[in-house]
Amino acid sequence: MGVKNLKTFLITERSGLRHHIIPTVEMTINLPADLKGIHMSRLVESMTEVISDQFRVHESIEELQIKILKALRERHGFKRGEIRFDFEFGYSTKTPVSKKRSWEVCDITASTVKENGKPAIHDVSVKVIGNTVCPHCLANNGGMTHMQRASGTIRVVGTTQDIPTYGSMIEVVENSFSSKTYSLLKLEDEMYVTKKMHDNPLFVEDVCRNILQNARESFAGRKLEMHAEARSLESIHKHDVIAHGRIVTNGE
Amino acid sequence: MGVKNLKTFLITERSGLRHHIIPTVEMTINLPADLKGIHMSRLVESMTEVISDQFRVHESIEELQIKILKALRERHGFKRGEIRFDFEFGYSTKTPVSKKRSWEVCDITASTVKENGKPAIHDVSVKVIGNTVCPHCLANNGGMTHMQRASGTIRVVGTTQDIPTYGSMIEVVENSFSSKTYSLLKLEDEMYVTKKMHDNPLFVEDVCRNILQNARESFAGRKLEMHAEARSLESIHKHDVIAHGRIVTNGE
Amino acid sequence: MGVKNLKTFLITERSGLRHHIIPTVEMTINLPADLKGIHMSRLVESMTEVISDQFRVHESIEELQIKILKALRERHGFKRGEIRFDFEFGYSTKTPVSKKRSWEVCDITASTVKENGKPAIHDVSVKVIGNTVCPHCLANNGGMTHMQRASGTIRVVGTTQDIPTYGSMIEVVENSFSSKTYSLLKLEDEMYVTKKMHDNPLFVEDVCRNILQNARESFAGRKLEMHAEARSLESIHKHDVIAHGRIVTNGE
Amino acid sequence: MGVKNLKTFLITERSGLRHHIIPTVEMTINLPADLKGIHMSRLVESMTEVISDQFRVHESIEELQIKILKALRERHGFKRGEIRFDFEFGYSTKTPVSKKRSWEVCDITASTVKENGKPAIHDVSVKVIGNTVCPHCLANNGGMTHMQRASGTIRVVGTTQDIPTYGSMIEVVENSFSSKTYSLLKLEDEMYVTKKMHDNPLFVEDVCRNILQNARESFAGRKLEMHAEARSLESIHKHDVIAHGRIVTNGE
Repeated sequence: MGVKNLKTFLITERSGLRHHIIPTVEMTINLPADLKGIHMSRLVESMTEVISDQFRVHESIEELQIKILKALRERHGFKRGEIRFDFEFGYSTKTPVSKKRSWEVCDITASTVKENGKPAIHDVSVKVIGNTVCPHCLANNGGMTHMQRASGTIRVVGTTQDIPTYGSMIEVVENSFSSKTYSLLKLEDEMYVTKKMHDNPLFVEDVCRNILQNARESFAGRKLEMHAEARSLESIHKHDVIAHGRIVTNGE
Repeated sequence: MGVKNLKTFLITERSGLRHHIIPTVEMTINLPADLKGIHMSRLVESMTEVISDQFRVHESIEELQIKILKALRERHGFKRGEIRFDFEFGYSTKTPVSKKRSWEVCDITASTVKENGKPAIHDVSVKVIGNTVCPHCLANNGGMTHMQRASGTIRVVGTTQDIPTYGSMIEVVENSFSSKTYSLLKLEDEMYVTKKMHDNPLFVEDVCRNILQNARESFAGRKLEMHAEARSLESIHKHDVIAHGRIVTNGE
Repeated sequence: MGVKNLKTFLITERSGLRHHIIPTVEMTINLPADLKGIHMSRLVESMTEVISDQFRVHESIEELQIKILKALRERHGFKRGEIRFDFEFGYSTKTPVSKKRSWEVCDITASTVKENGKPAIHDVSVKVIGNTVCPHCLANNGGMTHMQRASGTIRVVGTTQDIPTYGSMIEVVENSFSSKTYSLLKLEDEMYVTKKMHDNPLFVEDVCRNILQNARESFAGRKLEMHAEARSLESIHKHDVIAHGRIVTNGE
Repeated sequence: MGVKNLKTFLITERSGLRHHIIPTVEMTINLPADLKGIHMSRLVESMTEVISDQFRVHESIEELQIKILKALRERHGFKRGEIRFDFEFGYSTKTPVSKKRSWEVCDITASTVKENGKPAIHDVSVKVIGNTVCPHCLANNGGMTHMQRASGTIRVVGTTQDIPTYGSMIEVVENSFSSKTYSLLKLEDEMYVTKKMHDNPLFVEDVCRNILQNARESFAGRKLEMHAEARSLESIHKHDVIAHGRIVTNGE
């Protein structure tokens, strides 16, 4: 039981980088057996107070979500509490040849679950847009092939100390496509990206495998359950093609 | 691995009632260990052939999905195959007082999963729009309260013989709200619905409980895992309030 | 003033082809000066009665919309009445080489406006998915280029006698892309489509121009205002590229 | 011709209030007769450079959009250029009785059009969520009525000096509903809002009229074309009810 589709406003700052974020929030609790009903306003009140206390700047979404669940527990008993934010996240990159600054935006879902007597568990997904190029068609069609926009998602589940930064998760996905995509591409960049795509043809199942392989390397030493999804908006079809995968690392 | 966001076209007829349906399809398979890649076109081909063979009229979505997975197995080995249709479903009702015919539409998701050596399992959700009325506010505010549009969902998981009809699932949800809603309401109907809402104030958690209770009665004797979700588009807030529940019946 | 986001259910049959359609409806009227308020139920009642009278099969959406506006006028005065249906429309095609049947679905918006003393005017848009291939990149990059899923829309405005069939509008758009797309493609079809794309590279502005040119030819002799829109889901960018155009034909 | 569905990242600061915004951007130009094609990258480059020059903080969206169109003109001739941002905008309010801080979010669309030899024209829409209560039902049903979530939109078109602030547009719409809505409501606030709704029953056409009346008063002395739209998510129907209106003020 809880609230969904609630929009709020918050600020994070880490390593000098400040982000204002307008997440869509879902916040739910499971009641202990002795409680019959829920005081819905206490959910929103806990969140609002933590977020806006002195218009505070928070170190991270994970830390903020833990604080909100703690504030809620002081107001309202629960067996299990969960808070989830869906939001857009902006970052900057350089175009590959002309080295101009380009702004990119990806989709992030960040949840935290707190059960009695257990550490908080985070569940974070980062979805980035890239592309795929059909290797089978390239190999059998005199160098001609079809390519398309694609999306890749890495999802990690773990404790606060094991969850990687959004930046590192974005990098893991971006490097798994036939090529990264950019908001801005000058002519020389466009030629470079087109060549890179042809040099690196990948099915969605390859992108999916790359995401998991890149994540395993980048997040070595962390104890995480990791899921990957790749999806291509086929240029020769009206439908999409998808692939899923999953690995668990034991932190060694 | 598979296809998603594919739209197709099919016809069902049961008890003399014919439905043309344009589902959005997701169809995925898990490969056996000895198969490296997937022939994506065989998924779509299996579906297209079964659906359009002589432009055939099918008895039910469940029967059709089983046929498609069987046709796929003859073409392409898999450990686990799943096909899911999302579609809108129209039905007619009578307005409560004026007894005029009114057309209503609900959202249905119907999936079938086939694993080697196991019977096909269906997973069907029906989502209907109704309303909720705040009982707490009504009791404490001199007869004044707030009410709002709401949605209710019943999801059932079971074998072909245990899955109920869409019509009976729609009825289960419609009867769980403060009142049913209608596309058409003459003045006398509007008065009736408004009075009914005030006589039957319900939180989302009440609607959720009603759905499970109604389903238990209506689907007695069936072996089903059943999930309910209720969601109210609060009129005093910009966000929604949700509740979830789940029961399992053993078919006795 | 009127209703929006209403879903209903209707049947059309023309040339032996029957379509069941679940449109999302918007129906609005402008009141004459002497009327203060609107009886909202009369809008829905007019529509419901015309649609479901004996579960009648209608010849066309245009004819049905005119009937609904006429039925409404008998119940409720208006200066200007408009009814709009948004719906998905299924049709069949053959794959290009293997000649298998493939089912395709497109998006249609069909409106009719009736003003006092003027003939009914229809405004119909058909949106189909295809693809584009960058000609500039192909010419300057040793035969390598980028391509992507695209959509094309033809919109026509005119009287009942001048509005073309949905089928002819679909054809106009499909033939304007670098290649048509298909739900089903066997290997030989995929090779054919890939080659066709490379042989026929088009910017979105070319697709837009093609749509208008094809429409001018296909709809010769009709008096129509025609709009085209093309949009490509760029494979090298995260954003889309769009082009618009417009012509008016005088029916000669 | 231009780009659509592009996401970027920018910062505004006015009266000490800083906003980080992630707009979805549409940017289009009409070419002069002597230009055949468009250099699409120059659109994005103009925007990126203006937005991110020294990671600059901009005074307003309107001022920023004019700068982007000016930067584009230096790179690429056009007869008419338009840039549009769709984004979410957060603001804080106090709950009506308990006087707690509550965060609210609304939807804003802000466009600027520049044609040769004419001043830049802005077109700004602010959409806020509130509620409506049926006056007719309240008057005829012993004090019982139905109410529902609603949205109200004010759209203003004018030159830079005449466009009001987002804050004043939000206020115009919020004060036009049966009651404002809040993310947070303590029990005493909920009672207050419920009573206010019953004291102030309004049809969507009343909300629409209120928006225009409030705008006329709040924006007196400005030369503006103003449009209002109200939409209620009916609690007794599955569909919505809408009303539109329009006034033009001459700045006196």
